[in-house]
Amino acid sequence: MSAEIEHLIRQFARLPGMGPRSAKRAVLHLLRQPEAVLAPLIKSLEEAKETITTCSLCGNLDTTEPCGICRDSSRDSHTLCVVEQVEDLWAVERAGAFHGQYHVLGGVMSAINGVHPEDLEIDRLVARVRNNGVQETILALSATVDGQATSHYLAKKLEMYHSKITRLAHGVPVGGSLNYLDDGTLGAALQSRRPLNG
Amino acid sequence: MSAEIEHLIRQFARLPGMGPRSAKRAVLHLLRQPEAVLAPLIKSLEEAKETITTCSLCGNLDTTEPCGICRDSSRDSHTLCVVEQVEDLWAVERAGAFHGQYHVLGGVMSAINGVHPEDLEIDRLVARVRNNGVQETILALSATVDGQATSHYLAKKLEMYHSKITRLAHGVPVGGSLNYLDDGTLGAALQSRRPLNG
Repeated sequence: MSAEIEHLIRQFARLPGMGPRSAKRAVLHLLRQPEAVLAPLIKSLEEAKETITTCSLCGNLDTTEPCGICRDSSRDSHTLCVVEQVEDLWAVERAGAFHGQYHVLGGVMSAINGVHPEDLEIDRLVARVRNNGVQETILALSATVDGQATSHYLAKKLEMYHSKITRLAHGVPVGGSLNYLDDGTLGAALQSRRPLNG
Repeated sequence: MSAEIEHLIRQFARLPGMGPRSAKRAVLHLLRQPEAVLAPLIKSLEEAKETITTCSLCGNLDTTEPCGICRDSSRDSHTLCVVEQVEDLWAVERAGAFHGQYHVLGGVMSAINGVHPEDLEIDRLVARVRNNGVQETILALSATVDGQATSHYLAKKLEMYHSKITRLAHGVPVGGSLNYLDDGTLGAALQSRRPLNG
């Protein structure tokens, strides 16, 4: 195997969701079809590199600065949804149930992974809440130990700015079966039970 | 999500071993690090596109034409190992037990997938066996119905050229447990049993 191909396979293997085997298959697929598959991919990657930037307001990735969501004046700028990563922002958007603005934190605090508050977009979040009259800050972080610790840290940081601070509900996933649910979620779902009759 | 990002994700998702989710993760990983990860990947892909070609003799991918294996005069040019794809060639090379030349067929005949003899590098294989004094042709194709049918088709095509035609042995994988072996392989391994003493 030539050094160039090995180098390319190593780069693909480092992408999340790929391993050495799938990287090899992907690279061979590209090299077997240099004009039909490889050339268009190079073109798209170059275009993406040139046009796509991180929104300086919310951290979303888009071709405009600020991003399409931040520029959309029909959205409620008084409600801020804090997410860990851009893919979480996309997931909330796809659900179609939120019409405010976003703030991408860039991760969660984690002692094990060495992620400290200064590694996250916390100062910019505090500035946005303080300066923009945000009325509700929804902390839509992972329901993990790190996510919950980060939520509490953020809630403490934001409490003086008169913004209501909420988190997502825990409970049974829609379509999910109780039988396969972990005890923690089941307990949370029981505690947060809601009346069915009016 | 911008149209450019969606387009890029779709291209990644079409690569073998990737799906829509892993493609999204990979693309976000690239876009988040445009200089550290995306730019080097674009550079490697461009270099690969410019330098790597399919060897006109054996079908291997390499930066030279003919490829390094075909140009290696220390290898036995009278023994030809026929493989389906370039990754199979690499697998045989990695095993380090073969020192002849290769011939990449480009797949196997398959009625279901619509792969006919003329879609494979069969004519070139016959020409190589006929013209190059090949003494043994090892058909290292998959031990599937299609692979075996292709092997028999090739054996018929090649029998008039006085080349010995062989296939890989079937048997228990080294390190494999009988308990998990399918009946077909176990039967083949029994039939091809070898004396342990002398």
